[in-house]
Amino acid sequence: MYTIEQLREIIKAEFEKKEYVEVPYSLFEPIQYILEDGGKRLRPVLTLMAYNLYRDDIENALRSAVGIEIFHNYTLLHDDVMDDAELRRGRQTVHKKWNSNVAILSGDAAAITAYKYIESCEDQYLRQVIDGFNQVAMDVCKGQQYDMEFETRNDVTEEEYIHMIYLKTSVLIAGSLRHGALIAGAPEHEYKALYDFGGYLGLAFQLQDDYLDVYGDVAEFGKKIGGDITENKKTYLLIKAFEVADPETKAELQAWVDKKDFDVVEKIKAVTGIYDRLGIGELTLKTIENYLDKSRKALQKIAVAEERKSGFYEMIDFLENRKK
Amino acid sequence: MYTIEQLREIIKAEFEKKEYVEVPYSLFEPIQYILEDGGKRLRPVLTLMAYNLYRDDIENALRSAVGIEIFHNYTLLHDDVMDDAELRRGRQTVHKKWNSNVAILSGDAAAITAYKYIESCEDQYLRQVIDGFNQVAMDVCKGQQYDMEFETRNDVTEEEYIHMIYLKTSVLIAGSLRHGALIAGAPEHEYKALYDFGGYLGLAFQLQDDYLDVYGDVAEFGKKIGGDITENKKTYLLIKAFEVADPETKAELQAWVDKKDFDVVEKIKAVTGIYDRLGIGELTLKTIENYLDKSRKALQKIAVAEERKSGFYEMIDFLENRKK
Repeated sequence: MYTIEQLREIIKAEFEKKEYVEVPYSLFEPIQYILEDGGKRLRPVLTLMAYNLYRDDIENALRSAVGIEIFHNYTLLHDDVMDDAELRRGRQTVHKKWNSNVAILSGDAAAITAYKYIESCEDQYLRQVIDGFNQVAMDVCKGQQYDMEFETRNDVTEEEYIHMIYLKTSVLIAGSLRHGALIAGAPEHEYKALYDFGGYLGLAFQLQDDYLDVYGDVAEFGKKIGGDITENKKTYLLIKAFEVADPETKAELQAWVDKKDFDVVEKIKAVTGIYDRLGIGELTLKTIENYLDKSRKALQKIAVAEERKSGFYEMIDFLENRKK
Repeated sequence: MYTIEQLREIIKAEFEKKEYVEVPYSLFEPIQYILEDGGKRLRPVLTLMAYNLYRDDIENALRSAVGIEIFHNYTLLHDDVMDDAELRRGRQTVHKKWNSNVAILSGDAAAITAYKYIESCEDQYLRQVIDGFNQVAMDVCKGQQYDMEFETRNDVTEEEYIHMIYLKTSVLIAGSLRHGALIAGAPEHEYKALYDFGGYLGLAFQLQDDYLDVYGDVAEFGKKIGGDITENKKTYLLIKAFEVADPETKAELQAWVDKKDFDVVEKIKAVTGIYDRLGIGELTLKTIENYLDKSRKALQKIAVAEERKSGFYEMIDFLENRKK
């Protein structure tokens, strides 16, 4: 069994080989740039962990795990153009450092590279691998589409929001896990259970991000508290607040959302106050706990020794503690 | 055996089913928009023709042929953003009708749809299908990269230019043919010969486009003569002229390229005059003839009855007559 840290090192070493770089370098340099800034390598680590549940020869899954990380970075390249983002993990985004055309075309090349890498599996699994990856890739696209559409809508429901973050974020986490188990030869109901585990875990993580933006500890969370409130970002908390508020409170919240000139500290305090009165924090925690419970139950369906699953249980525990 | 017209009708009917459209419609509407304007459906027709060399149950190849056309249109969606093109086949481009984000994301969704469709083949061919399609897709990306880079370069050689148009245009034509033959169970040396046939045919076609822009008959060619000269487009003719010209003629040509204020008719006449003096028209025709010869030789390597190949020979003949 490998630890998460060991897997991360193995993935890091594989990326350092830069085997994905082809001629012309100009097309692959932006891919190298976005890949070399690292990040947590969560998705390929999950692929290798899932594979490692069943098999120890993880080098057999390494190439396709790398492909999943390249796919993830392709979505970032294009999302950053669409969102006109300035920074990504503290560095200039590709379309700012070069230009939009570079980000579009190098993104396209990254997507194809991802397909090339992900198909590195035994022939017996190829059909399911390609089917599964196409489904994941399309869901991620759909998630981004909904996310962009929701920006200009004022009637997004809780259900729609959950569906959007599920598609945009959770599906790739779920797919990374399913992929690892699938190419390790796991039985169908088990790789599907891992997909469910990843989906619920992804939802819990995303909702926690929304929660911590309001209720997190600045020092621990590492981001500025209240950023989402300042920007009127349609988070789970804001959507839920509009859903459960009485007409008067709803009008009060709407007034803060509509206000063009405001004192940032005052707005954060006022909106947080509304959330407190409506019990939005507790509602959100309950929803997160519900997803974590579901992820735990999905994990229990996998009939490998409990100790081999310890890394996954630790992830659930980590998320449970993260909110405190 | 099906005629080209019959195949085109079958493909048209398949597109009219719009089975590729998924939820949310907003993501697929731009794909439907670019697909419904038709075009010649050259690539899927070639796939079905290649399949039909070996087998008559062409419905078995229809889905992946449609996938190749969807892939082609995905590249158009992104290329039009990168080139900031206003029109595509006489209609507004997607990024002009909607916006760039729509063209990027719907393009991404089209690429994934293409992969979903192209993998529709018997399991025994899946590995080669995916490998082949990844190679084609990446080559098309590389071709677009070179094309964009050449715009700002003044030292593009004939060899580089041929390589660029080969990657950008010919490879997908070649790949469409190879795909059809491959999934029909053709022997390897034959589907590779079809790939070569398509590559040479694509080069001949592209060079003819360059030629006809200068030497074509306005009524027959349907485009404005001299458009490439007006815009200083780096065509085979311009690159070749710079290559073979003596220093004095080179300076004369460079002066026309650099001129900011000019009378369009005068510039076209002057540059055409330089081409005439250097014999560029004949040089280009010779190169085209060379590629058509090579495409004919590639076709001869295919051991099916000559009559089954007649559609392909007609294409070569058509291109030979087109230049006159």
